[in-house]
Amino acid sequence: MYKKIDEKIIKELICIVGEENLIADRDKMVDYSHDELALKEIRKLPEIVIKPKNEKEVSEAIKLCSKETIPLTPRGAGTGLCGGCVPVYGGIVMSFDNMNRIIDIDQDNLMVTLEAGVNLVDLYKAIGKKGLFFPPHPGDESATVGGLIATNAGGARAVKYGVVRDFVKGIEVVLPDGEIVNIGGKFMKNSSGYSLLHLLVGSEGTLGIITKAVLNLLVPPQVMYTLVVPYNNLTDAIRTVPLLIQNKIRPVAVEFMEQGPVKITEDLLQKKWPCQEGSAYLMIIVDAASEEEIMKSLETIGQICLDNNAIDVFVADNKQKQENVLNIRSQMYEALKNYMLEILDVTVPRAEIAAFVTDVHRVEEEFKTWLPTYGHAADGNVHTHIMKYKCEKGSWTEIEDWQEKYPLIRRKIHLLGKKYHGIVSGEHGIGLVKKEYLNLFVQERQIEMMRQIKKLFDPHNILNPGKIFDL
Amino acid sequence: MYKKIDEKIIKELICIVGEENLIADRDKMVDYSHDELALKEIRKLPEIVIKPKNEKEVSEAIKLCSKETIPLTPRGAGTGLCGGCVPVYGGIVMSFDNMNRIIDIDQDNLMVTLEAGVNLVDLYKAIGKKGLFFPPHPGDESATVGGLIATNAGGARAVKYGVVRDFVKGIEVVLPDGEIVNIGGKFMKNSSGYSLLHLLVGSEGTLGIITKAVLNLLVPPQVMYTLVVPYNNLTDAIRTVPLLIQNKIRPVAVEFMEQGPVKITEDLLQKKWPCQEGSAYLMIIVDAASEEEIMKSLETIGQICLDNNAIDVFVADNKQKQENVLNIRSQMYEALKNYMLEILDVTVPRAEIAAFVTDVHRVEEEFKTWLPTYGHAADGNVHTHIMKYKCEKGSWTEIEDWQEKYPLIRRKIHLLGKKYHGIVSGEHGIGLVKKEYLNLFVQERQIEMMRQIKKLFDPHNILNPGKIFDL
Repeated sequence: MYKKIDEKIIKELICIVGEENLIADRDKMVDYSHDELALKEIRKLPEIVIKPKNEKEVSEAIKLCSKETIPLTPRGAGTGLCGGCVPVYGGIVMSFDNMNRIIDIDQDNLMVTLEAGVNLVDLYKAIGKKGLFFPPHPGDESATVGGLIATNAGGARAVKYGVVRDFVKGIEVVLPDGEIVNIGGKFMKNSSGYSLLHLLVGSEGTLGIITKAVLNLLVPPQVMYTLVVPYNNLTDAIRTVPLLIQNKIRPVAVEFMEQGPVKITEDLLQKKWPCQEGSAYLMIIVDAASEEEIMKSLETIGQICLDNNAIDVFVADNKQKQENVLNIRSQMYEALKNYMLEILDVTVPRAEIAAFVTDVHRVEEEFKTWLPTYGHAADGNVHTHIMKYKCEKGSWTEIEDWQEKYPLIRRKIHLLGKKYHGIVSGEHGIGLVKKEYLNLFVQERQIEMMRQIKKLFDPHNILNPGKIFDL
Repeated sequence: MYKKIDEKIIKELICIVGEENLIADRDKMVDYSHDELALKEIRKLPEIVIKPKNEKEVSEAIKLCSKETIPLTPRGAGTGLCGGCVPVYGGIVMSFDNMNRIIDIDQDNLMVTLEAGVNLVDLYKAIGKKGLFFPPHPGDESATVGGLIATNAGGARAVKYGVVRDFVKGIEVVLPDGEIVNIGGKFMKNSSGYSLLHLLVGSEGTLGIITKAVLNLLVPPQVMYTLVVPYNNLTDAIRTVPLLIQNKIRPVAVEFMEQGPVKITEDLLQKKWPCQEGSAYLMIIVDAASEEEIMKSLETIGQICLDNNAIDVFVADNKQKQENVLNIRSQMYEALKNYMLEILDVTVPRAEIAAFVTDVHRVEEEFKTWLPTYGHAADGNVHTHIMKYKCEKGSWTEIEDWQEKYPLIRRKIHLLGKKYHGIVSGEHGIGLVKKEYLNLFVQERQIEMMRQIKKLFDPHNILNPGKIFDL
């Protein structure tokens, strides 16, 4: 079906990107065979890795792939969690390491124009210097702009500020036949024909290669505080969430987590979580225009929590304390990842999370396993980890029959997502490993429309083939 | 090309919607031959109007149209401004008058589920009673949800809260072959395959018929104030806008307008604008969680305006004064519409509006005409009115050679939009009359992709044919 890469094609690729921007050594290509997903079974070596320097080189490379029918898989920083950048059919992996320029920070229009390979660390730093703010904050700051847009990444701050989709105002895209198109621009409103921009956002590199983006920025809030609220059980914690949202205060983030993963992360980082009591926590981030205002917000939020069985309310009121808490929250995944099989991304309506998570813990009991579950409580985006090992009193032991249990648990949790009117992925995307569950949540007709759109953009199926759905 | 409607088809339509929900009388169909666009030349009578009561009737009707190749044009309240619901090829107009139920207001999830024919007046009222808030506020509150989604409507409050797209979380859509699909749901995050939802938002009824929607709601702000700031010239007024946005306060809306249209509207409504001095104004809406907070915001904003040549700052601090100001602003279009040819909707980057509007006034001088221009300053969405009459000292006189000038002025202003890196439509859509300018702003390849997507959804081209682009 696909052509293998031979010497002639390598020569052509060298002509396009230069010898120094091509990797053919198998050992050096191992890093390009997987993303952050733990499952080793899905890894696949590319035949070649190339690192174009600009959209013209991207265009030349994709034209070659179209002509020769060679699969081409674009790859950001590989921080994905569903195998989205694994080159399942071999071929070429295209890395954006050489396309990481921030082209323009436009303070009058509050827009940044940048290349797809810029990562969040560099973006936050560059705009921070100009007093500007890009609200989306997915877990891993090494993620690149191209990947964030391709998966419509979310993160904790989506509660108040929205997801990546809400901030993308323009993109430069290279289509599978090599044509470079510019969609949108530095304007806040656009009702000018079908939104190809929004079709490309979240299309996981299967319709076109995003080479540049224009992102809308905000002015950062004056003050931001973080609360940690311990509860005796997770249900009480999560039940508080709709009450917080219905309040006049719109929190930046409301995260939920349980004691187990928090303790493991404390040990890993050698940092202390602000409270030792309670078995479940809410972590609430609030921002405001002034100290007085935020104090009032914290008081209101604290009172709502205490009225709903919170044990206590801890305020991380300085930068150090806040970073400590946020660091433990964001490293929770790191602490678990070597012992787990997969992190799920089921998203349910906010009011259904308590029931959903209660049912997840029933599955945990039923299978005598450990399913550490935490996530973005206020937007219903729940991350359940299917584990291979469990942690008891600081030591890890292998879970009995985890191989047999894994697919069964996986299916049960997705069925629960369906039962509670949710969706398979809130922010990670479908990639390779969630394809089998897409049609549990999305009608076959819709998937068929997606397939036809794919064929329309990419008739030879060269662009990140094997992802989202089977053709 | 299309089949004419005969007695047999009328009988079948009566079977589907009932005799009482079908209009065949020519006089009664006149209202369905146009939208709010002033140009009489583009009016076209449908052959039949039907008013289905539910999605099943919509599905039966569209199946019939597909089978017989009859054009079908969905129509909300007809408040559009670019001929989007004009049945250019005759056939059937589908009205949603009988599909105006608010199905569910879900306070825990802050979501409303409703039929496409619900108008904004009823939506605001119903959710207001439950203490909830739908931020988008396009000019005409008789607009229906289906139409708002089909055009991705905007309005003044988009500065802080975003456009309609940002609030649509789910839709029920009837496809041209009659299949009913449900896309999205009551969840805040979704990265599960291509976003057919965002493809349908803004597709102007050409890809599918939206029959239901799930909209995200917010809790309303505690306090909202409106400022009116007079200036001696429009340039100074508009130049203040990026400075306001760069400030820590995020205003709900920043509108700009000139004295002429304000005076005409004052006369029409017999209401007084808060200030008589100045030839141009900013109208700024601010909201906040408390009186103290808003007072500080108003002070900051007022100071920025005064530092940038504002003559004075007027605060509409009670409901009556605010309604007065908002009423004059929203009725400005009503005051002009009988004397004008067309209202444009060019949107440019925020920092370019001052230069764009200055150039528009140069066109005004060049053509010895009147081009009253106002709009949403903070999101660059500028409404220039091409007039047939001008108003001098309260009396209207016909503009010399307006027929010859009209297409020339229209072209010049769109070229200016292009010059300032803008887009043809920010919130009105393309419809019938802006098709000729779409390819000035959007590459031919993108329009070709749109055409192919249209063919994929609607192979017989029965759904609102002749809109956005020519096939």
